[in-house]
Amino acid sequence: MRSLIHSLIVLIFLTPTLTAGVLEEAPISKETKACIMCHQKVTPGIVADWETSRHAKTTIQQALSQDELSKRISISQTPATVSADVAIGCYECHTLNAENHADNFKHYSKNVNVIVTPKDCATCHPVEVEEYSHSKKAYAIDNLIGNPLFKILVEASTGVMEYQNGLIQRVSKNAQNITCLKCHGTEVTVDGMIEVETDMGNIEVPNLRNWPNQGVGRKNPDGSLGSCAACHARHSFDIEIARKPYTCGQCHLEPDVPGFNIYKESKHGNIFSSKFMKFDFAAVPWTIGEDFTAPTCATCHNSLIVNSKGDVIANRTHDFGQRLWVRLFGLPYTTPQPIDGNTSKIINADGQPLPATFANVHANEYLIDPKIMDERKQLMGNICNACHSTNWVNNSFHELDRTIEEVDSVLLASTQLMAAIWEAGLADNTNPFDEAIERTWIEQWLFFGNSIKLASIMAGPDYAAFKNGWWDITKNAHAMKDFLNKK
Amino acid sequence: MRSLIHSLIVLIFLTPTLTAGVLEEAPISKETKACIMCHQKVTPGIVADWETSRHAKTTIQQALSQDELSKRISISQTPATVSADVAIGCYECHTLNAENHADNFKHYSKNVNVIVTPKDCATCHPVEVEEYSHSKKAYAIDNLIGNPLFKILVEASTGVMEYQNGLIQRVSKNAQNITCLKCHGTEVTVDGMIEVETDMGNIEVPNLRNWPNQGVGRKNPDGSLGSCAACHARHSFDIEIARKPYTCGQCHLEPDVPGFNIYKESKHGNIFSSKFMKFDFAAVPWTIGEDFTAPTCATCHNSLIVNSKGDVIANRTHDFGQRLWVRLFGLPYTTPQPIDGNTSKIINADGQPLPATFANVHANEYLIDPKIMDERKQLMGNICNACHSTNWVNNSFHELDRTIEEVDSVLLASTQLMAAIWEAGLADNTNPFDEAIERTWIEQWLFFGNSIKLASIMAGPDYAAFKNGWWDITKNAHAMKDFLNKK
Amino acid sequence: MRSLIHSLIVLIFLTPTLTAGVLEEAPISKETKACIMCHQKVTPGIVADWETSRHAKTTIQQALSQDELSKRISISQTPATVSADVAIGCYECHTLNAENHADNFKHYSKNVNVIVTPKDCATCHPVEVEEYSHSKKAYAIDNLIGNPLFKILVEASTGVMEYQNGLIQRVSKNAQNITCLKCHGTEVTVDGMIEVETDMGNIEVPNLRNWPNQGVGRKNPDGSLGSCAACHARHSFDIEIARKPYTCGQCHLEPDVPGFNIYKESKHGNIFSSKFMKFDFAAVPWTIGEDFTAPTCATCHNSLIVNSKGDVIANRTHDFGQRLWVRLFGLPYTTPQPIDGNTSKIINADGQPLPATFANVHANEYLIDPKIMDERKQLMGNICNACHSTNWVNNSFHELDRTIEEVDSVLLASTQLMAAIWEAGLADNTNPFDEAIERTWIEQWLFFGNSIKLASIMAGPDYAAFKNGWWDITKNAHAMKDFLNKK
Repeated sequence: MRSLIHSLIVLIFLTPTLTAGVLEEAPISKETKACIMCHQKVTPGIVADWETSRHAKTTIQQALSQDELSKRISISQTPATVSADVAIGCYECHTLNAENHADNFKHYSKNVNVIVTPKDCATCHPVEVEEYSHSKKAYAIDNLIGNPLFKILVEASTGVMEYQNGLIQRVSKNAQNITCLKCHGTEVTVDGMIEVETDMGNIEVPNLRNWPNQGVGRKNPDGSLGSCAACHARHSFDIEIARKPYTCGQCHLEPDVPGFNIYKESKHGNIFSSKFMKFDFAAVPWTIGEDFTAPTCATCHNSLIVNSKGDVIANRTHDFGQRLWVRLFGLPYTTPQPIDGNTSKIINADGQPLPATFANVHANEYLIDPKIMDERKQLMGNICNACHSTNWVNNSFHELDRTIEEVDSVLLASTQLMAAIWEAGLADNTNPFDEAIERTWIEQWLFFGNSIKLASIMAGPDYAAFKNGWWDITKNAHAMKDFLNKK
Repeated sequence: MRSLIHSLIVLIFLTPTLTAGVLEEAPISKETKACIMCHQKVTPGIVADWETSRHAKTTIQQALSQDELSKRISISQTPATVSADVAIGCYECHTLNAENHADNFKHYSKNVNVIVTPKDCATCHPVEVEEYSHSKKAYAIDNLIGNPLFKILVEASTGVMEYQNGLIQRVSKNAQNITCLKCHGTEVTVDGMIEVETDMGNIEVPNLRNWPNQGVGRKNPDGSLGSCAACHARHSFDIEIARKPYTCGQCHLEPDVPGFNIYKESKHGNIFSSKFMKFDFAAVPWTIGEDFTAPTCATCHNSLIVNSKGDVIANRTHDFGQRLWVRLFGLPYTTPQPIDGNTSKIINADGQPLPATFANVHANEYLIDPKIMDERKQLMGNICNACHSTNWVNNSFHELDRTIEEVDSVLLASTQLMAAIWEAGLADNTNPFDEAIERTWIEQWLFFGNSIKLASIMAGPDYAAFKNGWWDITKNAHAMKDFLNKK
Repeated sequence: MRSLIHSLIVLIFLTPTLTAGVLEEAPISKETKACIMCHQKVTPGIVADWETSRHAKTTIQQALSQDELSKRISISQTPATVSADVAIGCYECHTLNAENHADNFKHYSKNVNVIVTPKDCATCHPVEVEEYSHSKKAYAIDNLIGNPLFKILVEASTGVMEYQNGLIQRVSKNAQNITCLKCHGTEVTVDGMIEVETDMGNIEVPNLRNWPNQGVGRKNPDGSLGSCAACHARHSFDIEIARKPYTCGQCHLEPDVPGFNIYKESKHGNIFSSKFMKFDFAAVPWTIGEDFTAPTCATCHNSLIVNSKGDVIANRTHDFGQRLWVRLFGLPYTTPQPIDGNTSKIINADGQPLPATFANVHANEYLIDPKIMDERKQLMGNICNACHSTNWVNNSFHELDRTIEEVDSVLLASTQLMAAIWEAGLADNTNPFDEAIERTWIEQWLFFGNSIKLASIMAGPDYAAFKNGWWDITKNAHAMKDFLNKK
């Protein structure tokens, strides 16, 4: 049979993920030790999860000693507010910038923030936080609820109903919190203190509203935007989790934004699902071919990617739109990406807060210009080219271009049908988003159009065809035509 | 590079699942050896699967020698009917309680039961079987088909159709067996003997009806209820399988009971999918933080959970409703959990076999009281608290409370709309579950209401929003209103 | 605690997949070395993926030296066109049969084919290619687009729309390429040469049309049919990928062909998902019980399966219909499997290019006869019997038989309803596939009927019940009846 040593060598060779996590030991500060003493009892899962983290095993000094490409922090010298020679523990993170934190409270002898915010993480990761602060994600609340049109859409879709000789609908903050805002983020506020029962006796803690929430655009009690924990799951903050597609799959789901669903059904997703155990999801930089042989969302959209010689193929970014030239998510049409992550400021030629008019005239002053579009296309193309021929990549992009045109044509036809239905008095556009036939129209651009376009570029044909795809968009168009003609 | 020894230590440290299964050898009885001799040839997969099992490597004596928390059997002394010093093999299980087994037959020289039932498993696992026998799962057939209202629903939904100047529908046992009863369980009966061709020649075996089936409420030929194999897949009976979410995902699926789908999209599911290779799914007791850092269904709903000091956070239960205070599954509304697992006995104030009337008046005498509700909420909260702050948990529960109110309001409005439609003669409530518009109403409470409520407490926002969520429930309500007004 | 050595032995024992890949070294030809020199820079991912492959580590000589059951190539002597003593690299595959390749071009000093086709793979794998060439998969384009009826269906479902006093629809090749043909395959043609920018400077390459594509029936520039890469993902060509269900899950998806979805929710899928890390997906032959304890798609449909004694349970086949007796995919009804993989030749008694008339009269001369049906049923049954009793298997098959009858009854009723709707002038059958009510009818047989039948035999009840199952088929039938009666 096989020799033991040979097998061991093979084992070690084939299991890079198991060894990539080897870290130095780091001393735990006496303050964090005090936290752990109680929390090991009251919240043992948090403590144990943190113990598996890189934070628990690394000092800032050690983190700074890495070469530039391997560094996992983006400061170049030790920060003033955290000790450089201890592990990054409870105390180190939960006490930062206390003066800005409305959620700061006296917890036994220490002043502690309940929520660690991007502003706090910026102590060691300032570049990532800065990049993120310009992204659409950071503005995810205002981009939705701060947009007067989308606000109506949200309220119509989540309105609590009663029936009294007709349907009466009322706005519900709670319904919004468990739906749209669970991903987009809530505005977390502090409403005094509240007494809670714990295993250590009753204690007073800040009474948080619109909480819990880990949405990408969360408004925090220190005024900052976002939640790093949306992707970097507490308290291991494991880069392995952030890089695997399941993280994106918390929100990027069918029917509106089916990126994760399409990925799973694509060749990329197939290879990932089949071979992920042999990939190294913790390596920084992330070496294409060596650490993985199929991309995940993070590979193409934000990670630092190098080839086996260490040449950079793509730099890290936490502004997740930076490698994208068009915005496929249709409102109702595809346009160039917005210049600014805060899209609630956009006003189109018809005065609507949308990047295109219903006639598909783009609000160009708010959108990136062709030169920037080309640069980003080139950047993304470089990543594709690491595994695909230029012809393959160019044709794929060309296929997308044509798909955008074709889908937008159907969306225009559907919008014209909707206008005709309103005109004929068959629906009431006082609220354009509540009635059943209006929902049929909305599904065209909010579900099916997005699905087809994403499926085109990601090569997941089911979502272009029968699952919220061409089948559905053409069926719905016929149903709208029937509605108009019949009544 | 890395040193071999260092890597090996890391390997061992990080792969608890691989070493947790180390077991003593156990001698195989001569009777089981006889079974294996042929079955290794005729059904090699069964034998090989069993060989990987704990049953194949443990005697009752060894199992009894474990300390109380680590014990995997719930007897305290050796049973009279099984040898205590042999592995638990074919013969040991398939010959128990033969006198009660209508499926017992002479198989070569032995009297063998085709089906091993919970009553047989109770030989070594009596506490689990006793607990299970009180659960809604054990009564899953009668809770469905034994309920006259649901019987009509099942028959309408699975009726085989012909068209002769109108749709004619007939009841099909087969259609029920492959749909509802595949999960709920069939009544397995014995219809004499039948000759079957095998590799060892023709033999006579009991002719089972409504078989194969592994539904949770299966009625067995010995009069017992349930199938342990529903979750403990034969013949490895691996606790690893039962504890992973895929087992629950055989039945708890969208659109009616989307627990598994929501889990996958939640933060819990994300962490599980990303890191399950590093968890130990075989350890008993199951240590939070140490054996796993994200819960699966089993963690919260039934496993024996301890902290790293060995303190019990939650005791094991096989009555899967024991940690639940409300029944989110809407019929049509949410009520407290029923007192008795057999819910077919419930009669509400309107004489319907439902836990609430159509006006949402609860049948309180059949439902647990507020005190028991509080106790269960506390118990579940303790599990959540192992990883989350009290404020986080309380707010999550409060969010659920409000969601229940809000969803039930829409369900009441929908039910009132349906009543108005029946009243107006636009649908015929002789059979309230067959027509298309009635299905629209049913989807409100059987699909969308359940989905929203589960998604609220499990934090999987897609199923609260666009995927059978608020989007769908409000759209359907408008469609029902249109139906009523148009005609 | 555990002893190091004990743990290591357990590790090795439990991780067959890690050691199964141990291969000899194979020298790389100087031509391939030349390819790699540049491509390591321009497409590092391809080179790195290939380096993980068996091709990179095996010579034909070594491959030939295996015993018959273990051989992974189907030639018995070294081919004339490839060196037998080098690894199978870029040059060895991309230069074969150059004279037939319209996509051959002068690439630096070599004549290289862009696409490696089944005809090229046949150099070493002739039996697999021959088998495949008779399968429905090989003819997947003509079976769809070459069938005049399905062509209309495809064009109606993917037609790009404009609205000008009515919906105008135009046929789009691009829309077909990203939907149906992404799985079925495109006809890849060469339209001269095109200059592309690369990291090594501008070069000229063949300008491929309807590319990229890896569909199962792709028409290649050398006249061959199919793409081995559809399942054997380039450039690792890992059998592990082909044998895992994710590969089939690229195309066999709900709502039309939900094999993968149903598998995931079945007991088989549950065990696979729970325990795949302990299975050996690379072993040839594939030993049931030893290499795996739950089947994947490949196990039942095409792999070479043996028992632990090495007895063959099922021979390998790359004609994926060879173990199937009925064709569950309904057009609209279930019939025996076609004799010929090219189904576009079938004409039924009503002159339609369908295996059954709308009244469900089978076109028997094109379909396998009862004797062949029985042989295939027996063959598939043998595989099932490796893990299940004869009674279990027979009853499952019987359940399927009844389900086929019942579903076909509903499909007949639905088709009669559609005919009545056309007759009444409520829809226009000039194009029988475009209008909304026609789509309702199509969903009956293209979605729900298929779903129920597959779910019946694969024991994934959700897809027989509420998810495109009996619930949906009966609801839609009522909706069609309402449509007929109302107007």
